[in-house]
Amino acid sequence: MSELREDCTTRDWVIIAPERAKRPHNRPKGGLADGPPRWERSCPFCPGNESQTPQEVFRVPLPGRVSAWAARVVPSRFAALTLDGTTARIGGSYFFHKMDGIGVHEVIIETPLHNATMALMSYQQVEEVLAAYQQRYNVLKKRRQFKFITIFKSHGWASGTSLVHPHSQLVAAPIVAPYYRRKFDVAFYHYDNFRRCLYCDLLTSELERGARIVAETKQFVVFHPYASHVPWETWIIPKEHHASFGLSPPTHLTELAMVLKDSLLCLYRGLGNPDFNLMIDTASTEEEKNPYYHWHIRIMPRLTAIAGFEIGSGIYISTALPEDTARLMKQIANSCAEDECLSFKQKV
Amino acid sequence: MSELREDCTTRDWVIIAPERAKRPHNRPKGGLADGPPRWERSCPFCPGNESQTPQEVFRVPLPGRVSAWAARVVPSRFAALTLDGTTARIGGSYFFHKMDGIGVHEVIIETPLHNATMALMSYQQVEEVLAAYQQRYNVLKKRRQFKFITIFKSHGWASGTSLVHPHSQLVAAPIVAPYYRRKFDVAFYHYDNFRRCLYCDLLTSELERGARIVAETKQFVVFHPYASHVPWETWIIPKEHHASFGLSPPTHLTELAMVLKDSLLCLYRGLGNPDFNLMIDTASTEEEKNPYYHWHIRIMPRLTAIAGFEIGSGIYISTALPEDTARLMKQIANSCAEDECLSFKQKV
Repeated sequence: MSELREDCTTRDWVIIAPERAKRPHNRPKGGLADGPPRWERSCPFCPGNESQTPQEVFRVPLPGRVSAWAARVVPSRFAALTLDGTTARIGGSYFFHKMDGIGVHEVIIETPLHNATMALMSYQQVEEVLAAYQQRYNVLKKRRQFKFITIFKSHGWASGTSLVHPHSQLVAAPIVAPYYRRKFDVAFYHYDNFRRCLYCDLLTSELERGARIVAETKQFVVFHPYASHVPWETWIIPKEHHASFGLSPPTHLTELAMVLKDSLLCLYRGLGNPDFNLMIDTASTEEEKNPYYHWHIRIMPRLTAIAGFEIGSGIYISTALPEDTARLMKQIANSCAEDECLSFKQKV
Repeated sequence: MSELREDCTTRDWVIIAPERAKRPHNRPKGGLADGPPRWERSCPFCPGNESQTPQEVFRVPLPGRVSAWAARVVPSRFAALTLDGTTARIGGSYFFHKMDGIGVHEVIIETPLHNATMALMSYQQVEEVLAAYQQRYNVLKKRRQFKFITIFKSHGWASGTSLVHPHSQLVAAPIVAPYYRRKFDVAFYHYDNFRRCLYCDLLTSELERGARIVAETKQFVVFHPYASHVPWETWIIPKEHHASFGLSPPTHLTELAMVLKDSLLCLYRGLGNPDFNLMIDTASTEEEKNPYYHWHIRIMPRLTAIAGFEIGSGIYISTALPEDTARLMKQIANSCAEDECLSFKQKV
């Protein structure tokens, strides 16, 4: 028998139906060729092709080498939002309400290596990427026309990415996205009722129960949420309360990089380099210091297509219990080599 | 420059960025083989393999032939929800709230022909499928434990389907899905403010403007919504107000079948047999006669993967203006053969 579980952060329901894992799949494989080269002549993100991207806005240099870089941030060549226009609402009609597509859409090129993947990068490289995220976030939040900045990463064709070279994206928008509106509402409601942060309370409760915890470090907790929307959905939550990723102490990025890399490594090993989406869920730029929201990272492996029922109704059907996948992920971490998964092996 | 448009039925925003249509795509093709056979030995939905599905719950017989059928409805072999259990909420914890996965999950096998597709079926065959939808809907709504029944169709691999043989699905659930909760809220708010149905008002407004109308028939309007979430998103709305598809007059199914088939035919021609999801958006079973909601059909072509930004934020990025795609779809209808697209050629 399947279960319906409520996600306490959105108050939506998820169906967890392990029986459905037996469904036939005719999924095409490939597309992203197996084993891409270290450098690809036609890739706009590869070193030497810097002129194929719009003017760089941030760079992590490689010490001692003038033109080399460890990471770059550039505007998207196919930006969904641009700096043209204003935030004025146009039309004024009740049914046909719009505004200019104003905003910023940037790409964080995570490494010069075409065939790298975050799961296998060094802790230092991941930390540099996270520092680039935070740097751009904190620069862009100062522009008053943006209400919301989202940072996300798509890995593999099923995640919706069109490029192989490891990259993340940042979108600064003049409106709060509906998913986050709902999350903020639910968290505010909890805070208003209990005068405590929903996520702080959730962490306490998850740590007490333990069954869904993958790892606990000094500053972060990795777990599989009770109402996981997809199998192996993995959340990373900082123990210290900060509504905004922008205000997370930069000194925590070292540990965050370890925890993120180790999480991705376990998913890489457990699921065989799965396609995935990664999102940094953070407060609106106008509410960075609020007491009710608590930034975190969501990693959603994309093992099956998002189907008609999910699209149509908003109810996800998952085929694995988070208690089972959390246990498996811990086993993978435990069987790692001595110099791997260092953050998960911390004694807290 | 792109545009941000608000969907007046959900109050979420969509980014319409035609520039992004130029993005490179490495999308794998195939999976669902081109040109499947009329009959497939291993397909559980093909005639002769009836014993491979659970016990049939409804059948459209073929007149004059005892064991033959034009359409069948069977429980899903991989049901997300089943009749086991109860609707009692379990756990009682604020964070870990759940219930049994109680419900019904059925498959509507639309035709005995393995390689058929609704866009190319006869009007009569489509009408029989719609009648099967309505029949099952009206039987299942009588069970008090179900609050919500959704009927949907997934065509092609990108839509999330795992089987080629033309089929639709029905899910009866004990809770209202979050997408619909929001739609009902927004419609109720409009009704409470104006004492008029949001969708009746929207239809009036769309018909006045005309730019997004694909076809108007005696009983239905086909249009591309102002804030289309994907390119060529197509809505079919009945002119007569009914909150529930279950209460739509059975006499209207004849015209609905023509309008639906003609819409799918135009998409088939315009986009080359695109993958798509189709949803019947209808009131909750407890509110079938309410004055504020208005059932309708949404067709969402799946030309690109639902990507990280959409999944993460709920903001869709579309690459086509609905005014442009509606005009193209009208042109396709106008260039049809004399005996095609009959409903679109009606004089109203």
